[in-house]
Parts: sequence; structure tokens; C-alpha cells
Amino acid sequence: RINGDRLWDTLMEMAKIGPGVAGGNNRQTLTDEDAEGRALFQKWCQDAGCTMGLDEIGNMFARREGTDPDALPVYVGSHLDTQPTGGKYDGVLGVLGGLEILRSLNDLGIKTKHPIVVTNWTNEEGTRFAPAMLASGVFAGKHSLDWANDRTDAKGKRFGDELERIGWKGTEKVGDRKMHAFFELHIEQGPILEAEGKDIGVVTHGQGLRWIECTVTGKESHTGSTPMHMRKNAGRGLALVTELVHEIAMKNQPNAVGAIGHIDVYPNSRNIIPGKVVFTVDLRTHLLDKLNTMVDEFMARAPKLCEDVGVSFESHIVGQFDPPAFDEACVGAIRDAADRLGYSHMDIVSGAGHDACWINDVAPTAMVMCPCVDGLSHNEAEEISKEWAAAGTDVLFHAVVETAGI
Amino acid sequence: RINGDRLWDTLMEMAKIGPGVAGGNNRQTLTDEDAEGRALFQKWCQDAGCTMGLDEIGNMFARREGTDPDALPVYVGSHLDTQPTGGKYDGVLGVLGGLEILRSLNDLGIKTKHPIVVTNWTNEEGTRFAPAMLASGVFAGKHSLDWANDRTDAKGKRFGDELERIGWKGTEKVGDRKMHAFFELHIEQGPILEAEGKDIGVVTHGQGLRWIECTVTGKESHTGSTPMHMRKNAGRGLALVTELVHEIAMKNQPNAVGAIGHIDVYPNSRNIIPGKVVFTVDLRTHLLDKLNTMVDEFMARAPKLCEDVGVSFESHIVGQFDPPAFDEACVGAIRDAADRLGYSHMDIVSGAGHDACWINDVAPTAMVMCPCVDGLSHNEAEEISKEWAAAGTDVLFHAVVETAGI
Ligand SMILES: NC(=O)NCCC(=O)O
Ligand SMILES: NC(=O)NCCC(=O)O
Repeated sequence: RINGDRLWDTLMEMAKIGPGVAGGNNRQTLTDEDAEGRALFQKWCQDAGCTMGLDEIGNMFARREGTDPDALPVYVGSHLDTQPTGGKYDGVLGVLGGLEILRSLNDLGIKTKHPIVVTNWTNEEGTRFAPAMLASGVFAGKHSLDWANDRTDAKGKRFGDELERIGWKGTEKVGDRKMHAFFELHIEQGPILEAEGKDIGVVTHGQGLRWIECTVTGKESHTGSTPMHMRKNAGRGLALVTELVHEIAMKNQPNAVGAIGHIDVYPNSRNIIPGKVVFTVDLRTHLLDKLNTMVDEFMARAPKLCEDVGVSFESHIVGQFDPPAFDEACVGAIRDAADRLGYSHMDIVSGAGHDACWINDVAPTAMVMCPCVDGLSHNEAEEISKEWAAAGTDVLFHAVVETAGI
Repeated sequence: RINGDRLWDTLMEMAKIGPGVAGGNNRQTLTDEDAEGRALFQKWCQDAGCTMGLDEIGNMFARREGTDPDALPVYVGSHLDTQPTGGKYDGVLGVLGGLEILRSLNDLGIKTKHPIVVTNWTNEEGTRFAPAMLASGVFAGKHSLDWANDRTDAKGKRFGDELERIGWKGTEKVGDRKMHAFFELHIEQGPILEAEGKDIGVVTHGQGLRWIECTVTGKESHTGSTPMHMRKNAGRGLALVTELVHEIAMKNQPNAVGAIGHIDVYPNSRNIIPGKVVFTVDLRTHLLDKLNTMVDEFMARAPKLCEDVGVSFESHIVGQFDPPAFDEACVGAIRDAADRLGYSHMDIVSGAGHDACWINDVAPTAMVMCPCVDGLSHNEAEEISKEWAAAGTDVLFHAVVETAGI
């Protein structure tokens, strides 16, 4: 078994970097805080005897050698970046759980046949630079490196420039690594495991996602002196589309979700009718057909709703992935590990996107989940227990060592 | 008659300070650009032989002496601050039209019995610091100076601190001036005069206004992994309230308007369900009873709509004024001037709030309006013709000189 106390202390130490305003974290990708978190992780890995790799998109790789010089490494990891008002565990548990595995192997003097590599994938959250899982997507050949470098944040800063600025752009070609397998531990970010009283979620599938960035254009004018019949209020377009997204998600129950999380109003003045509103629709389900139907319905109805209130509607996709089905052997390794260790478990679909969803396309992949309190995530109040963290990492440990061989 | 070319050149000169991004202006109150605009106006007034006054809230007073030492001055003016994406004439025409009157009186060698004072009222727009017409409101005894100084902008900066910072806080007590009368020239900011083909609007009344700042609170959580039935999406509250405001305005036609111009979403991330949305509702009509009924209906229904979708609603008033009726003698002076000069004119209700609406409570007051293209204002594309500007200033000139006596 891994050392649950040490794992917890390591999580709490990392959480000191980029503290939020309400007990969580604001350590967004490619900020100074991200750089600080990376440096701490690197130091810990080097102290555990690893050699470090860094690719051109800032993905970090901490390698513990195996006994077979020809064996491909087993990879394990997640991400250290957080939401602007994020929790202490989303992503972080998967990276530091990987580190804990290496430390436990050192403690126990175990040598694995395959090397083990712990990774920190750059920009998983996608909140500063859309899309989410950007760097694992480049690794898996979903996006080109140039395209990723050209992504811009709300202030117009380029991803590539910011990566150089914080000093974590490496020289290794992205995706130039072959993997024997990839495992990711993550908090559930949903309420199911806690409600069912299970220690472990064995992730068999993930939801697919479409992020549709929409621009509703009306006409800026005075809120007081513009008669009602002359108005082109872009805010009304936002209102109608907000309810449309909700309606589409509700009529595709169970297993579909939809919301608008990001909204920018222009010029955002109390006495100016909004001339433009830009917002991103997030639609998901684990059934590909249903996902496409939802998007089709949205695309068919949103422009019409806006037109009816005198404003125009444009949209384009800024993030998308299809529902992944994870590798049966890797999923089996996780299920077996949970059984062996005596943890209660259930099969589960991941509600969120994860780096594992992209890596699944280039290597045998699986995920293990632990519960989180009230299913709450992407909130500074995100919480897990020390026992849940330890159980998830134990299962990860056994699945990884099983796969890496002794 | 005044000198229309000189007036136009002066307007264009002022518009160089705080240029916008699309041909208009961004010279928001208490910014460096505001300070620069004030300095230019002061220089012009001094060149025209005026003595300058400055009160504790930054209101500027350029005085041209009269012949009767006991006569109270006739005041004329408006504001030099603009919206973030504002036009070149909203407010500015009223201040520089006042200056043009002084210059014309100098050209013609006319001495008036009453002194004439041209004013620039601080923070009319209210977009950076709510409410609008803040400094004329303090002058008229509607707000205390301390309360005004404590207003904060979106970045948390205090009004009082920003006034000191830009160096335009005076020592004269606010409201310590008695006026014989006050006249304000302003662009209509609406479509009526242009549609009716009139040169001049004789403003008899103004609309009343209520600004209601609302906070809808839900729960930040993950857009992907939070099941629909567990969501508390504050964005849905915004959507329903947006449509409610529209509905209330529409059912009070004609002569009522309503919209939401300012919206801040928290934490505003693509994959976080909005936990909080703060926005300001703007409701107006020139009928006090109707205004109160509209607000009552809003206050009764908005909380319920939000509750029904699982989010909570709170609100408070951040700006308000009742519909003003202007002084009959002053209104008559404007109507007579337009007749005498041969300009076509009509009586009109002001759709927007103006400093004159507050000053009306402490002095005989009236307003003259000129048309603006397409009724467009609070938009960088706001436009008027040189002839409209000259006609409005001519009428102002005659009404002011008539009232000040020769
Ligand atoms: N796990 C996680 O929150 N990933 C971010 C991408 C998403 O929105 O699902
Ligand atoms: N004239 C003008 O736009 N004033 C600002 C206050 C208002 O919103 O009416």
C-alpha cells in the first residue's frame, strides 16, 4: 500500500501555490503560479531519483527506470493546472498520486520491468486557453503544435508566448514517446460514487463534448432614449439561447448535460443596450449519436431564436471530443486491483474530459476515480477525504505495477 | 447667431482626447483622459476671459461677469465625461455650446445683466461609478458628498480617491451656489426629432429611472460531471430576468423602456456552471405611477422566477430619479428663441437622464435638444450635423441671453 499521510501532505504543500480566495486554488495554466507548481513537482521527482523530460508544449515526464531495457514505459499522470476558482485535487491528485507510487516503490525497493513515467500535461482545464486537454491532444495528434501555440486567452496573449515566458517550453518533439499503457487517477467531480457509497470508480467510458462559441450581435444604444421597437438587444439573444441549451439537455435525459459557463457582454455599461454578447455553450453526453443530435438541434434553433428578437447569431466549435471507450485490459487491471485490495467499486462513465480521453487514442488507457464531497468540483470548496485519496492511489499503484511487471 | 464653424472645430478638438476604438470617445469620468479634457476646457474658458471655480466634487464653473453686481448668474452646461464606447457629442455639446455662447458674447461685445456661468458636471454617465448624474445630484442635495466619495468602480477604486488622483478636487462646498436659472443643451439620443424633421426639441419633461442591481446566486460546479437535477445555474436566473424586464417594458407601452446593460458572470469559465451573476436592470418611463408599478411588478416576479430554477435573487437600487417637469418660464424662453430664430421645433420628453433633471429641483431649469443620426447614442457611431449643433446652440444662446438680460 502507498503512504496516505505522505500523499496528503504533498497535496497540501502543492495547494499553497496559487491559493484561491476561498480555500481552493487559482493556478491557471502558463501563469507564474503554474511555473512555481511545476518547479516544486520537478524537485520532488528528482528527489525520488527520476530523470526529467520536457516537450515543446511543456508536458513534463518524470522517469523511473525499469529492468528491461527494451520495455516501453507505463505512463501515469494528470495535470497540475487549475480553474480560476478551482479545487486542490482536480488533476493534482492524479499527478501527485503518480509521484506517491514512485516513492512507495522506492520505499519497498521494488524494481519494475517496464519503466514508469509520471506526467504533468499542460493546460488540461482549457479555461484560459480553449480547448481543454490541449497538450495531451497535441501529444495524441489531435491538434498541431502550431495551432496550439496560436490559441489566445481573453487578453489576447498567445499560448506559445506564455509557455516561453514562464520558462517551461522544452525541446522534445510532442508525441515522440511510445507508451506501454497510460493510467490516470482523478476525482470523480460528480456525485455518483459518494451517493452509492463506493470507494472506487472504474471508468469504462467518458462523455463526449462540444464547446460552441457563440456571438450574438445587436446594436449598442441608449437604454433610456431608444424606443423599444428600435432596439437590437444582444442580451435577449443570450437569454433565449441559455434556455434553449437547458431545454436540449433536459430532453436528452438521462446522461446529457448542457450549460453556458463563459459570457462576455459588450460594452457592459448600465445604460447601454448590449451590442454584442460572446459566450460558450458546453454540451455533453457519452452517446455519440445523441451528442450530434443535440448539437444539430442547437445549430438549427439558436439562429432562429435570435433572429426573432432582431439580433444575429454566429457560432463556431472551440473544443470537441467524441465519447471514449477505455482499453478493456487496462480497465480490468483497475477493477482487479480494487478487488484485490478490498475496496468497494463500481463501473462509471466520466462526466468530465480528461487527458486520458486523448491518450486513449494512442495507447492502452484507463482511469480510476475516487469520490468527492457533494460531487462538487470546479469550485474552491471541492473536497475529498484522505482515505479516498489513499484508496484511489492504492488502486492506481497496483494496476500500474501489475501492468509494468516485476 | 453663434459661430457654427468655431463650435464644430472645438467639438472636434475635444474629441481628440480619449479617442475610442471606432471613431467615438472613451473619456470616462475621473480617468487621465477626463483630466486632460478638463484642462483643455479650462484653458479655453480662461482665454475667453472667464474666472474658474471648482468644487469639492470636481464640478467646474467658468464665470463671465454681468453688469448687475447683485444679480444671480444664469448657468449653462452639461458634462465632458463619456461612456466607455461613447460618442463625441453626448454631454460635450452642452458644455462647449456654453463656451461658444461666451465667445459669441465677446465677439459681439454684449454685456449681460446677470453673470453667465458655464459648468462641467462630474460623472454624468454613471457607467464607471453608479449612479448617473452623481455630482449634479450632490449639488442638488440628493446625495451627500461622503456617499458620493464612497462609490466604487468595478475594480474597487473609490470615487473620492480617483478625483484626488486626477487633481480635480476643489475646495468650494458643493451646492453653495444660487442660480437665477439653468439651461442644458443636449443631443436627443433618440430618433424622434430626426423622424419628425425638427431642428429643435423643447424638453418639457424627462423620464424617471430606476437602476436595480441584482445578484443571482447558484452554485459553481463542473459543467460536465454535475447531473442536470443537481445544478444551480445562476445564468438561468439571468436569462429569465432578462426576458421579464423586456416583458414588463412591453406591456407598459408606449413610453416605457427596460433592459439589462451590465452583466458580470462568476467565475466566467467555459466549464464552470455560473455560481453568481450580477447585473443592473434599467427601467424608465416619464409617468411616475407607471414607473413605480413596473418596479413593483419586477420586484414581485424576479425572485420567484429565480427560485423556480433553484437559484436565489437579491437586489438593491443603485440609481433612481423621478420624472422631472421643467420650469415653464425657462421652457418658454427656449420655445420663443426657436420661434424667433425660425427653427422648426416640437415639445419632447427626454428619454435619458441629465444633470438638468437634478438641477431642476434647485433652480428654474430647461433643456434644448438637437437631433442625432438614427437616434443613436451611447455608441461610438453617434453622429450629428454641424447645422444641428449650430441650431441648438443658437437657441440656447438666445434663451440664455434673454434670461440673463442685457
Ligand atoms: N476534468 C476536468 O475538469 N477537465 C476539464 C475539461 C472538462 O471541462 O471536462
Ligand atoms: N444623457 C445620458 O446619457 N445620461 C446618462 C444617464 C442615463 O442613463 O440616462
